[in-house]
Parts: sequence; C-alpha cells; structure tokens
Amino acid sequence: MIDLEAFALELAKVAAEVSLPYFRTDVSEINKAEPGSFDPVTEADRAAERALRAAISARYPEHGIIGEEYGEENPDAEYVWILDPIDGTRAFISGLPLWTNLISLRHQGVPVIGVAGQPYIGEIFIGGPSGAYLVTREGKTPIRTRKCASLSQAVAATTDPDIFRGEDRDSWDRLKAQVRMARYGCDGYAYAMLAAGRIDVVLESELKVWDWSAVLPLVKAAGGDFTGWDGQMPTAQDGRVLAVGDEALRDPVLALLKF
Amino acid sequence: MIDLEAFALELAKVAAEVSLPYFRTDVSEINKAEPGSFDPVTEADRAAERALRAAISARYPEHGIIGEEYGEENPDAEYVWILDPIDGTRAFISGLPLWTNLISLRHQGVPVIGVAGQPYIGEIFIGGPSGAYLVTREGKTPIRTRKCASLSQAVAATTDPDIFRGEDRDSWDRLKAQVRMARYGCDGYAYAMLAAGRIDVVLESELKVWDWSAVLPLVKAAGGDFTGWDGQMPTAQDGRVLAVGDEALRDPVLALLKF
Repeated sequence: MIDLEAFALELAKVAAEVSLPYFRTDVSEINKAEPGSFDPVTEADRAAERALRAAISARYPEHGIIGEEYGEENPDAEYVWILDPIDGTRAFISGLPLWTNLISLRHQGVPVIGVAGQPYIGEIFIGGPSGAYLVTREGKTPIRTRKCASLSQAVAATTDPDIFRGEDRDSWDRLKAQVRMARYGCDGYAYAMLAAGRIDVVLESELKVWDWSAVLPLVKAAGGDFTGWDGQMPTAQDGRVLAVGDEALRDPVLALLKF
Repeated sequence: MIDLEAFALELAKVAAEVSLPYFRTDVSEINKAEPGSFDPVTEADRAAERALRAAISARYPEHGIIGEEYGEENPDAEYVWILDPIDGTRAFISGLPLWTNLISLRHQGVPVIGVAGQPYIGEIFIGGPSGAYLVTREGKTPIRTRKCASLSQAVAATTDPDIFRGEDRDSWDRLKAQVRMARYGCDGYAYAMLAAGRIDVVLESELKVWDWSAVLPLVKAAGGDFTGWDGQMPTAQDGRVLAVGDEALRDPVLALLKF
C-alpha cells in the first residue's frame, strides 16, 4: 500500500503540471450542461485526466479507472482510481486558488487513499494507511482534525447554499443556525481544511462519486468521520455527504438532517 | 508618488511578515461584537496593525492613519494611510488563503494607492498612479480588468449572501439571477481577481472604510470602475459598494440595485 500512496503523490504532481498552466489564462470552456444552466469544464480538466489515465495505465494496467471526463474503464477491478482532475471548476475560472486535483484509490469498493492537490499554492493533502499529511516544497507535515465537542463552537463549510434543494436546504439552514460560523466557496478544499483542523463540519449535496472519493480517506486518515446523511458509507447514487473533524459532532449534525 | 507606491509595497511586506506566522495556528480570538453574533479578530490583526503604524510613523510622521484595530490618528492630514491588517478574518480562521492585508493611501480625501497582499500564497496586488500589478517571488506582472459587455456573460462575487439585509438582499438576488455565475467566499480577494480580469462584478454591503479603500485604487488602476450603489464615490457611512471590470457593466448593475 505504501507503493500505492507514493504513486498517488506522483499522480498529484502529474495533475498539477498539466492543470496549472491553464489557471488564470483564457481557455476554451465547454458548456456540457443543459442550455440555461452553467457547468464550466475547462480544457485543463480534460488534459489533466488524459495525463492521469496514461500514467495509471502505464504503471498499473490491471487497475480500473473512473473519471469525471472520460468515463469508466474496468470499474470492477480490485483497485480502481477515481479522478476529478479539477474539483471546483468555478473557483478555477474565477481565478481563486481553492480548486483541487482530486485523486482516489478504491480497494474492493472502499476508498483507501485520497489526494487533494492545489498546484498554484503548491499544496498536496494526502490521506491513506500511512496517515494524513500536507506535502509542500518545504516537506511533509502530519495533519490532524481538531477536537470540537459542541456544534456551538464549530466552523461549518459548504460550497454554495444553492447546492441544497428543497428539504436539503432546510437541513443546511438548521445546521448553519447552530454553528459558530458558516463559510461558503471552498469545494474540495474545505475537506482539506477539516483534515488540517481548521474547519469542523462540511456538509454537501449533489456530489458525484469523484467529488467525495478522494476526500473521504483524507478526512478519515486525519482522524475525522465521513458519511452520507444517513450516517452510513456515502453512495454513488445519493450524493449527500457529511464530514466532521471530531466524531462527537456526527450524531448532533445527523439529528438536524432530513435523509 | 512613486516613492509612496514603493513604500506601500514595503508596508505589504511588513504586514505579511507579521501576520503569516499566525495563519493555521491556534491564536486567541477575541469576540468584539455583540454577544450572540461572531466577529473574530485574531492577535494577528492587532500585531500587524501595530507594525504598520510603527513603520508609517517612522517614515512619514506627518501622515495620518486610520486603522480597523487602533482607531484614527491625524485623520485630516493631506496623506492618510487606511489599514485593514487582515481582511477576511473568517477565511483566516478557517485556514483558507483568501484573506488579505489591505493597505491604502488617501490623498486629500481620495484613495490613490491600494495594496492587497496574500502572504501564504505570496501575492501582492498593487494599484496606483503607476498602474496595477501582481507582485510575486517571480517578479512584477501588469494586471488588467477584462472586457465583459453583457451581464449574461459576467462572473459575479460577494463574500456571503447573508451580508445583504432586507432590500439589499433583493438587489443581490436580482444581480445573481442575471449573471453567468455567482461566487461566494472571497472578501477582498474578489477585487484582486476583478483587477486581474477573472471576475467581472463584485457587490458588497456593510463594508467599513478600511474594507474598500485599498481595493478602490487597485480596481481603478487596472481599468475597472468602483462606486457606491448610487454610482458615486463610496462613503464611509453607507458601506455598499460596486466594482465592475468593464465600465459598460456599471449602469446595467446599478439599474438592478435599490439605493
């Protein structure tokens, strides 16, 4: 598994090298959503996923791959890489360095290694069997979630209140009313800050499997808990997830959510 | 004025050196707002403002100073420095590197030089009579707002939809409904991205004079426009501001706002 963690870090560097040159430049954007809505996908996304797929296939041809841009390849393999080459494309196109390259390795259906890289800042957050670390030019630092026994002391984050529809929005509003502070606009970077002990609760909905597969092992390796809104392992179908830094917060938050 | 721009850059470095060591560490936070609300102020804020005041008084003892933490000193002087040592304290305490050191120089009542520094990333955005630049370890790059003739193509940003109360919230919601994309969670960094041509509209309310005095000359020097919601120079009393990268957007946005 240590080899695979090292390889996941190598992949983060590949994703960084390919995606960063597009940041804060004018790249073509393709609207793959319905007309009227807006789901920006940049060339950087596609180029980074192609590079990651090539690197994985060269080193571990028997591994499966599931990627946001280019679909599934051998998805029932024992080891499957799950790729979101640029999570936070809206941050990316707004010039905000909170987008991340998300790379996950799933073993027998369970995400076991997760990497979130922010190339402009030069950060790679990694979690796996060897622990959770922030890797920068200066070296490798262990990271850890923080204690936070009460919701009234907690910092909560989500990407945008508008990701919650109908009753899900009510769930978020109930949580927001109980915490010390709520923060918007973080995408996958919020989970990295939870793993690093700066944020206590991240609540999101409508996530795809590549949005949460990398941050789940990152959060868990750092000492936190990561579930669906029902308190069980998140599913590819449901898309609603909860991360807490201190597991004492899980039940109080779940009690506020309508699953 | 070139000397003063160079000095403003020096001040940004002073603020960076003092504030950065506190980032992602556990510093004492003081709640200076009413009980029940939450307005975090870190030691970093205070330490940075003390260092800035000392540097200004040593070099330009005749200049005035207005700072968020330590009040006014000679505020009717010809030249007055306006300091928000850490704008985006909520980002700061959440570990998100979008907080900025904001430093402005006002000449005869008008902000003429503005600096926004992000020490963790290593960026300083400066705008003044010599133009607008991003200064990093790699050097100094001119920045420019971008053309955006229509709201339907615009990227809009604000810190948090909850900063807008009553009719102000309706104004924001009308703007949000017309733009291509809305982004939350940026604080002063949003204006830097507008100056750099990545964001087209920033709308905010309840700002203090130190929140906007630095970003006004930055935006203007980069080719954008910066006003109150009435289309005039912002005032210390009103606190509602509008920045646009392309001045063609100003009147269409103002038409959506209730002043």
